[in-house]
Amino acid sequence: MRTVTRYRERQSTDRTDLDALLDTEWWGVLSVVRDGAPASLPTLFIRDGDSVLLHGSTGAGMLGNRGAGALAAFSVTAMDAVKVASTTFDSSVRYRSAVLYGELEAVADDERAPLLDRFSEKLIPGRTAEVRPMTRKEIAATSVLRLRIVDGEWVYKSSAGFGDAPEEESDAWQGLVPIVRGYGAPQRAPWCEAELPESVARLVGNPRASTSSALAEP
Amino acid sequence: MRTVTRYRERQSTDRTDLDALLDTEWWGVLSVVRDGAPASLPTLFIRDGDSVLLHGSTGAGMLGNRGAGALAAFSVTAMDAVKVASTTFDSSVRYRSAVLYGELEAVADDERAPLLDRFSEKLIPGRTAEVRPMTRKEIAATSVLRLRIVDGEWVYKSSAGFGDAPEEESDAWQGLVPIVRGYGAPQRAPWCEAELPESVARLVGNPRASTSSALAEP
Repeated sequence: MRTVTRYRERQSTDRTDLDALLDTEWWGVLSVVRDGAPASLPTLFIRDGDSVLLHGSTGAGMLGNRGAGALAAFSVTAMDAVKVASTTFDSSVRYRSAVLYGELEAVADDERAPLLDRFSEKLIPGRTAEVRPMTRKEIAATSVLRLRIVDGEWVYKSSAGFGDAPEEESDAWQGLVPIVRGYGAPQRAPWCEAELPESVARLVGNPRASTSSALAEP
Repeated sequence: MRTVTRYRERQSTDRTDLDALLDTEWWGVLSVVRDGAPASLPTLFIRDGDSVLLHGSTGAGMLGNRGAGALAAFSVTAMDAVKVASTTFDSSVRYRSAVLYGELEAVADDERAPLLDRFSEKLIPGRTAEVRPMTRKEIAATSVLRLRIVDGEWVYKSSAGFGDAPEEESDAWQGLVPIVRGYGAPQRAPWCEAELPESVARLVGNPRASTSSALAEP
């Protein structure tokens, strides 16, 4: 059982918390051991039930066909707010983070096509219905690796809300500054004359505010 | 010399690119090897010349006093845009990322105070002038670890712009959707009656758009 050694109150073993983070964030950092030293790579992911799935080119190192079998740590983080305290010592950030541990497994050829579509749908919901399906060649060129979500093998930490009132008196302002994310105006490729598709229009009209859940419970 | 095995065109060995990323982003993922397996932790950082500095509680594991001497990978990523291609296979994200490799070193007691102030200034420029200095006790409770930026021991990758026009004909929209970040309205802590300080007002009035540099050169 992996536990957080400090700030124990910030840990959660509730899968609901973990899944909410994994279903909102797009990318994480995959780390493995290579020649006795750590090696890391940021990469996109999706959650598929009790697994996290990563994809890459079959010929790639960590994410390719040779990646299966490796012991991995996969880290996903959301930065929700800046915490402004009355001292710099107590100032920090409000975040949610998870690290999943396990062995990477290869996903079989015949399972890959629908899973790969879900990577696209996570980035741009509705996009797969607007373009042609992936070809066999494209699917064959793309590896999918699975990291199972196993109880006791993941650590979820968060720090939400304002924290406690400081013990020492202070006239300094204290509070939170939410960090928000959204999309800017779409930029059409120079060679393209198509109208903006519904999927992209919906994306832009529907900014992802990362902070609502974390700030709702101070 | 560490090199990117795929998409070699995306690699840079230019310190200007690396420093621009490290000076804009706040947090990264620290990975080490523990009992033969990778272990990861997201954490804030600053760049100090030819080093990246991490901080933590002296009693913490990876970031505490016991963290020095470990072989580490430190990964920093900025997600700049969603790339919408005419196929899901070619759709992806526009990003900048760096992974630094090396051995963590402890920073001596007498060097820590000014460095710790720089962590606060990176999050909230001007804040240290508005609050009392850190106390000796606070400084003593905080470890600072150094990871040196050594040529050949870091990998910078980026994918910017629209990419190439696709080889196959398509009526599908192709382009970029910038990912932008900013700050929401500051929320004062329930026990606090102070006016909003200049540092926080400036922060909120000055949103960090992560995309300008990456999208300027399609």
